[in-house]
Amino acid sequence: MISRIAILGTGLLGTSVGLALRAAGFKGTIAGWNRSPEAAQLALNLGAIDSIAPDAVEAARAAEVTVLAVPIYATLDFMEKLSGVLGPEHMVTDVGSTKRVIAETAARLYNTPERAAFLPGHPMAGKERGGAALADANLFRGAVWLFTDDQARLRSLRGTELVKDWRELVAAMGAKTLDLDPARHDELVAWVSHLPQFTATALSALLEDEVGDAPELKDVGGRALREMTRLGASPFSMWRDIAYTNTEAVARALEALEQRIARLRENLRSPELRDEFEQANKFRRE
Amino acid sequence: MISRIAILGTGLLGTSVGLALRAAGFKGTIAGWNRSPEAAQLALNLGAIDSIAPDAVEAARAAEVTVLAVPIYATLDFMEKLSGVLGPEHMVTDVGSTKRVIAETAARLYNTPERAAFLPGHPMAGKERGGAALADANLFRGAVWLFTDDQARLRSLRGTELVKDWRELVAAMGAKTLDLDPARHDELVAWVSHLPQFTATALSALLEDEVGDAPELKDVGGRALREMTRLGASPFSMWRDIAYTNTEAVARALEALEQRIARLRENLRSPELRDEFEQANKFRRE
Repeated sequence: MISRIAILGTGLLGTSVGLALRAAGFKGTIAGWNRSPEAAQLALNLGAIDSIAPDAVEAARAAEVTVLAVPIYATLDFMEKLSGVLGPEHMVTDVGSTKRVIAETAARLYNTPERAAFLPGHPMAGKERGGAALADANLFRGAVWLFTDDQARLRSLRGTELVKDWRELVAAMGAKTLDLDPARHDELVAWVSHLPQFTATALSALLEDEVGDAPELKDVGGRALREMTRLGASPFSMWRDIAYTNTEAVARALEALEQRIARLRENLRSPELRDEFEQANKFRRE
Repeated sequence: MISRIAILGTGLLGTSVGLALRAAGFKGTIAGWNRSPEAAQLALNLGAIDSIAPDAVEAARAAEVTVLAVPIYATLDFMEKLSGVLGPEHMVTDVGSTKRVIAETAARLYNTPERAAFLPGHPMAGKERGGAALADANLFRGAVWLFTDDQARLRSLRGTELVKDWRELVAAMGAKTLDLDPARHDELVAWVSHLPQFTATALSALLEDEVGDAPELKDVGGRALREMTRLGASPFSMWRDIAYTNTEAVARALEALEQRIARLRENLRSPELRDEFEQANKFRRE
């Protein structure tokens, strides 16, 4: 079984992984690294990691499993840096929200008998605000954790074992694992994750223009308004990389929504409005 | 003080009003009428009303205050029916989601010294599904209850008292009251209530087309998807009247959102995406 884990990036996800591992009974060591030493210290204080690693590459070298919990472009940078220094006794995984680019990079730099294994992962869990302070040992409980592993790739015996053990740890954290092709993953999350986010951002930005100078009016909207704009608080720093690495699928989904809203608008007084409500009701049937 | 109330329509809102009145310590009688006798019986079983009225007009005639808790066109029908049979010793109020048409009808048929008082009201509370079974004594706690009363209208001495007493009962139910001009009301709710609803309907209907045949994929979206589509369950029967009586303001808001989403889509890889996220963040600042 895995006994040494390094978490690179102790934000909301990285710190929650550490807490969830401990809650699941993981007994090995967890080293944590973060660009900002304050965030690493907070993860240590919370018990998510048991040591702060001064150097990310050294931490990965000392671990069996390295979890990359940083934005996508930073993940790609680490994948480049680590592929040369890690060998078949190592496994690397990530938590990035798009997988096509990461899976391509993994195929190029990992998963040969001489190199480390790389398992692209994506837990469908998060909050509208980031940071270790919001980390939660139960963040992954009941959530889906997607993998876009290329099963056909060559991999060392040890790498194969580590991948299997990591998938068991993910299940022990309470997540439901699901395997998808990377391109299919990016299309699917464009619909069920990125479209809701960018819709909430556009809606919140529009409402800020329209009623932002009268904060008491936000109360008028009640729960419906709060829910439909909660994701408006999501940080650009995280979503920029998603917009860049899944542009076409996201643009297709957004354009489909524009057309759908226009159709609804043109039918506000026509019987077709009923069809639209009935179709929406179906999506929310129990 | 008010001692006899009639609630016409014992769905989610009407039944919740009855429960909230009792929770607020209202000691008088509450008669309930519903088109479907089963829903009236349920409201009675829940303790929201203490008698079932076989006839709506008779119930209003026997009460001091009549609460119309039916869809908007049914509210307008009752306003016509009741104005001829009620006198200055009566007050009528409603809970409809658009107020311009109702305020115009009130100005035409009520609020003279010889006629009943009419106070147009709109509690900003509800659920995505209707019906007495979901009624809640705390539904209005912390919610805004809007009034679009035309203060300048003539009204009988008794009517003025009843209006004042009803506003106090609304505050006792835990709601924050706010007065608005009816046209301003309809514009404001187009932004903060109707736009979120119709956006959720369009998004849910689109997603049903795209991933509806693979229910396991809904789990992938997690909390963000659930929240952004919860209102997709809202019934057409309620929203049809809103679409008909606030068409122009809703269409303006929807068109503005279409344009906003298109702008975001065209800027997925440009620095302007940052501005859009920052504007959205402002709407959700604490």
